[in-house]
Amino acid sequence: MAPDDTIHLAPQTGCGLRLGRGDTLRVISPTGEQVADVTAFVAADVREWLSSGRTIDYAGCLYVKVGTTLYSNRSTPLLTVTADTAGRHDFLLSPCSAEMFRRLYRIEGHHPSCFENLATSLAPMGIAADAIPTTLNLFMVVTPDPVTGRIDIEPPSSRPGDFVDLRAEVDLVVGVTACSAELTNNGTLKPIDVEIHRTHA
Amino acid sequence: MAPDDTIHLAPQTGCGLRLGRGDTLRVISPTGEQVADVTAFVAADVREWLSSGRTIDYAGCLYVKVGTTLYSNRSTPLLTVTADTAGRHDFLLSPCSAEMFRRLYRIEGHHPSCFENLATSLAPMGIAADAIPTTLNLFMVVTPDPVTGRIDIEPPSSRPGDFVDLRAEVDLVVGVTACSAELTNNGTLKPIDVEIHRTHA
Repeated sequence: MAPDDTIHLAPQTGCGLRLGRGDTLRVISPTGEQVADVTAFVAADVREWLSSGRTIDYAGCLYVKVGTTLYSNRSTPLLTVTADTAGRHDFLLSPCSAEMFRRLYRIEGHHPSCFENLATSLAPMGIAADAIPTTLNLFMVVTPDPVTGRIDIEPPSSRPGDFVDLRAEVDLVVGVTACSAELTNNGTLKPIDVEIHRTHA
Repeated sequence: MAPDDTIHLAPQTGCGLRLGRGDTLRVISPTGEQVADVTAFVAADVREWLSSGRTIDYAGCLYVKVGTTLYSNRSTPLLTVTADTAGRHDFLLSPCSAEMFRRLYRIEGHHPSCFENLATSLAPMGIAADAIPTTLNLFMVVTPDPVTGRIDIEPPSSRPGDFVDLRAEVDLVVGVTACSAELTNNGTLKPIDVEIHRTHA
């Protein structure tokens, strides 16, 4: 079925959008091997936010997959994963930021980042930069070693056209990015396509 | 050296406290096998908070240990682990809450929780309940399966008297609890002792 709205995210960009209850957000990696960060806030009270800690606790699992419910800090179901052709996603790491590029990659000066793109996109929607939590990093492959706790960030395993569907369980303000970190995306920065499939009550 | 301040946390209670830059917070499990949740905010601007996502990203590790720096959402070093006799701690899960007890353990009605204890203790210090992030869960043993992502919550491996020292890198507002979840603490709820060793400039 044709989407009601589409947004093309050029490499290293982001967007803010609104979902109504029952709407489905489809996040597509048209070329594969590209991470998309997602965050969400309850539209009726943006102090309520998508919580990695609650979601991992309730799922009993680090990995988000079809059927996983994504919870808020107040334990409200915000989103449900209803389709996923990629299979691996991360919910451990913060969005990349200028400080992250400086600290981990010794890149001085400005570097585009998911954090900046989320902050810029969500500010007009009433979300302060400091309110941006740990993001759901779609298509990102982060694997922990259970003995040492070390994490390996591997190239995304997604192929061209892979997508994830997230169904909104309440009215939401959502941010989505095409991730800006070269190494996380196997060396090349690529676009992300966003589709919104609205419920038509 | 004798501490400058001590706080005894009875089972299922919490406290808020202030640390100056250079002060050391010692969190002690006097009986062993008891989790203590810790969260922190920058005193000069409490919109800046202790971030599991930034800390795990910069450490490249899920497990917090001696030498680990704990970062804020703005990538500021907030605390450094300077001593640890226990060895395993969790930084994945949210503090237990009434909703958690209802959802995971089918406990209806009121149940004491780390979330409530943190919210109550930190409210007079200017921290809203919604601002409480994923906590550092000292002495909590959470082990992931790298293939499935499933997490196992095992009994704390801490023995009587085990402690963790956290050195404040900036002036902080801190919350600490003696965790309220029966199962997480191997069936019995126990106290936590807190010591503050102040720098005397």
